[in-house]
Amino acid sequence: MHLAVLGATGAVGRTMLRVLAERRLPVDRLTLLASPRSAGTTVEWGGREWTIEVPREGSFRGVDYALFSAGGARSKEWGPRAAAEGAIVVDNSSAFRMDARVPLVVPEVNAEAARDRPRGIIANPNCSTIQMVVALEAIRRAAGLRRVVATTFQSVSGAGETGREALAREVSGGGGGESPFSRRIAANVIPQIGGFDAEGWTEEERKMIHETRKILGLPDLPVAATCVRVPVEVGHSVQVAVETEGELSVDGARAALAAFPGVRVSAGAEDFPTPLETADTDEVYVGRIRRDPHVPRTLHLWVVADNLRKGAATNAVQIVESLAR
Amino acid sequence: MHLAVLGATGAVGRTMLRVLAERRLPVDRLTLLASPRSAGTTVEWGGREWTIEVPREGSFRGVDYALFSAGGARSKEWGPRAAAEGAIVVDNSSAFRMDARVPLVVPEVNAEAARDRPRGIIANPNCSTIQMVVALEAIRRAAGLRRVVATTFQSVSGAGETGREALAREVSGGGGGESPFSRRIAANVIPQIGGFDAEGWTEEERKMIHETRKILGLPDLPVAATCVRVPVEVGHSVQVAVETEGELSVDGARAALAAFPGVRVSAGAEDFPTPLETADTDEVYVGRIRRDPHVPRTLHLWVVADNLRKGAATNAVQIVESLAR
Repeated sequence: MHLAVLGATGAVGRTMLRVLAERRLPVDRLTLLASPRSAGTTVEWGGREWTIEVPREGSFRGVDYALFSAGGARSKEWGPRAAAEGAIVVDNSSAFRMDARVPLVVPEVNAEAARDRPRGIIANPNCSTIQMVVALEAIRRAAGLRRVVATTFQSVSGAGETGREALAREVSGGGGGESPFSRRIAANVIPQIGGFDAEGWTEEERKMIHETRKILGLPDLPVAATCVRVPVEVGHSVQVAVETEGELSVDGARAALAAFPGVRVSAGAEDFPTPLETADTDEVYVGRIRRDPHVPRTLHLWVVADNLRKGAATNAVQIVESLAR
Repeated sequence: MHLAVLGATGAVGRTMLRVLAERRLPVDRLTLLASPRSAGTTVEWGGREWTIEVPREGSFRGVDYALFSAGGARSKEWGPRAAAEGAIVVDNSSAFRMDARVPLVVPEVNAEAARDRPRGIIANPNCSTIQMVVALEAIRRAAGLRRVVATTFQSVSGAGETGREALAREVSGGGGGESPFSRRIAANVIPQIGGFDAEGWTEEERKMIHETRKILGLPDLPVAATCVRVPVEVGHSVQVAVETEGELSVDGARAALAAFPGVRVSAGAEDFPTPLETADTDEVYVGRIRRDPHVPRTLHLWVVADNLRKGAATNAVQIVESLAR
């Protein structure tokens, strides 16, 4: 398999290379692409040195799968070209996610959607959305979904390397440098991820609303989300209030989640997951499963995953695996 | 006015003394009480030195108001005795909050309740609850309340001085010392505040549910809360999804909140409050006011306040002010 990674030196790109090595895909050729700033440097992978190149015409010829994680502008520029050169593009940016001709895929939920890709492009969903829909799909299969209200606690690595650098700099008291955050994030929480629309929702919140509906194939599902940046390095947490169509007990929900691929369920109340303790793993962790004390058919869940892995790199690699099988 | 403070050396007790000085209550005599560990040390207040004493029989004789913030056990021990000695007790612990003969008071919401206190004790509510009910009462007066779903982001100072010390120690890499948290809190979030009940709800979540209903005088209001500790020093943030009885536009909600005492409303979407930026102030800050994209009569709010001030010390002092007026 000949695999290309665009954005190979970024937070997600580097995680993609680690995940590819761990999962032992039969990759015998790599094309590593990045900006001119990184071009010429080398990366060791699979016992060989690979040189970073700048993408150019022909870069994707002979490539089977091209994993993109270099931002929306690069994806728009190179996605259609890579597809035209014959690669199947798995794009981690938001550029194509809501395009009706581009499937939006979380393999545990809708792997089959990846097989119908008229533009040759498959979109990898938003990080918080991925972990939430894995839990929601398990609940949906057990009792159906009627409504979702989510509140997120998102780590700084969701804003890329500059997010981690900004937090580290603020913690150490160092000045200068660019921050992707609109306020100080050290010792703070910021209820803004991306720009605001006219109704006051942020870009990240709109992604969670619309991508959840598309992945689940439930275009009318009421979803609301409030997305908050927290001073955590890696790992997103999502509090989800979910109203089901049918009755579902806590034990029923726990059983449905435990039987679902890629999910790890807490053994009991005290065994809840936290981002620090689950970082660097590929699973979606679900704990704090409670029935609403007053409202029927409503459960509350606490869902944690590594945003660089299941929320980005691992999910993209799983899409390749599901197609290459 | 002769005022006593039990727990005068703790995080909230010291804030009470600061707030008392700022608000210029006519206090001419202080009785400062704490554990034997602090007894004999002195505190400067109002241009005089006051010596910390251990509470004993007679400590509250001649005292007009006794502010308690020394934990539930001390409150249970000394609350009824202080009342018997003639003091009006304003207790910051959870010991008496759900006692039907003890009013639970947030002056902006139910100041009049403080006048009916058969046990001579008035309870100061839970920190997150105080800031949430201030916002909820403004909404209630405009459109009624039908349901509340809250998710909190609570600072470590909510666990007292040992909470701040634990975070500082973890951030600096220092070992040893006791932590009030069940997991590492630095660079992490912990969805547990207090112990779990059989249904998986924590003590803090139960407080938010039951205290909100009692303060608002709405014993059947459906309230759900998920309470999460975050690595912030001071200041709690609460995401609230609130279903109203009547229609309420974003502008209507903003107007109702802006006209409500003690509330500051964001000027627009970008002007949201954060805990770091609002610490050391007495107001409740409300921003990110949005209508649910799909569910009628439902608003989402982001509510921030200093948990040591409005969430504890300031609210207690305001109770005294409302009675002394």
